[in-house]
Amino acid sequence: MSTIAGVLGGLGPEATVDFLAKLVAGTDAERDQDHIRLLIDHNPTVPNRHDAIAGRNPSVAPQLVEMATGLERNGADFLVMVCNTAHAFTEEIRAAVGIPFISIIDVTVDAVVADGHRRVGVMAAQGCLEAGLYQQALEAAGCEAVLWSDEELHSFMALVYRIKAGERDDDIASGISRLATSLVFSGADALIAGCTEIPLVLAPDSAPAPLYSSTDLLVQHTIKLAKEK
Amino acid sequence: MSTIAGVLGGLGPEATVDFLAKLVAGTDAERDQDHIRLLIDHNPTVPNRHDAIAGRNPSVAPQLVEMATGLERNGADFLVMVCNTAHAFTEEIRAAVGIPFISIIDVTVDAVVADGHRRVGVMAAQGCLEAGLYQQALEAAGCEAVLWSDEELHSFMALVYRIKAGERDDDIASGISRLATSLVFSGADALIAGCTEIPLVLAPDSAPAPLYSSTDLLVQHTIKLAKEK
Repeated sequence: MSTIAGVLGGLGPEATVDFLAKLVAGTDAERDQDHIRLLIDHNPTVPNRHDAIAGRNPSVAPQLVEMATGLERNGADFLVMVCNTAHAFTEEIRAAVGIPFISIIDVTVDAVVADGHRRVGVMAAQGCLEAGLYQQALEAAGCEAVLWSDEELHSFMALVYRIKAGERDDDIASGISRLATSLVFSGADALIAGCTEIPLVLAPDSAPAPLYSSTDLLVQHTIKLAKEK
Repeated sequence: MSTIAGVLGGLGPEATVDFLAKLVAGTDAERDQDHIRLLIDHNPTVPNRHDAIAGRNPSVAPQLVEMATGLERNGADFLVMVCNTAHAFTEEIRAAVGIPFISIIDVTVDAVVADGHRRVGVMAAQGCLEAGLYQQALEAAGCEAVLWSDEELHSFMALVYRIKAGERDDDIASGISRLATSLVFSGADALIAGCTEIPLVLAPDSAPAPLYSSTDLLVQHTIKLAKEK
């Protein structure tokens, strides 16, 4: 029996395609059978997470818990979720399942800290920042979170919704790049791409400081866990 | 409640990434919530299908049935499978579930026939051809299947295994293209890309005759079914 990774996906859909493509490409394999088995609940119908976190809409914990318990019931040995913001509901998911839920926030902060960075720019979406996910994890690791102004966060959200709508105009990548640079001007010595929409438009080597992609780090961790068991 | 499409995937892994990427890109959506929910069993650990069909190894029906029943149990409203060859086990899958299983073979042949083609070149893998999947469906529709010689099929399989190993050298695309041309020389007025590895290297517009991608047609059909319910 091989280890099965359960994936809460579809939040958004292209980010899950990006995750899956990187996972398949990043697996050391010569034949189909060398690859990892995944159970993916690709569920874009989960209501807007930012509205839920801000209290404008009910919690989406019930939907995420339904996905998680379904994946566990169907044989997943551990769970990952391809969306940073939805990790605001980590506690509810963990309480509902008996298998490990690997946090994309922890995996990302662990990598940044291991490389010795101390002032970390957090490129993340509204709900993720409002829930304090990266701020708390960085503080617990003795790091300082460098954040955007309200106006910059507003610009970022407008770009995120354009990416989700499938737009890929040049001004989106340049806008994201400008927002990354702003965090470096504010003193960040490393950046976290803490929204899985970012890698869809921003290449790591075009960032103005070492960029830690939460997608890439979750991919690497998923492969490692699935292969070591 | 939205309609949930169940996907038997991972056969091979990159073909499933290709399917998912095309499905997400092909869905008319402005927001995450406009997209389709999918339950995907991405299971590359299913043993080699060609060996099973040739009788060199046991049937893989038990593995495919386990995937199909798991997807049904978890809420899928209908099933698709992103692999032509594995459709040799369609009967066993259909017998095991109470929801529709949409055949990639039928969807593809329907599209070719609707466009009035009568001599159809079948680019498919060994097990798919040995099981006669496209030959029977084309014959039932009053069409003639144009096939490769044994030597050509042997060349195709060598290329398929290189694609599955992640190789993308230029000679792979040119080799597939030459095998497509050979079917046109043998009288085919249209071609079926009846192996989901083909679109990974061969662009439809570079084919020597109208090329019907089984992946693309299954994507379109999945979107249509999920949206109409």
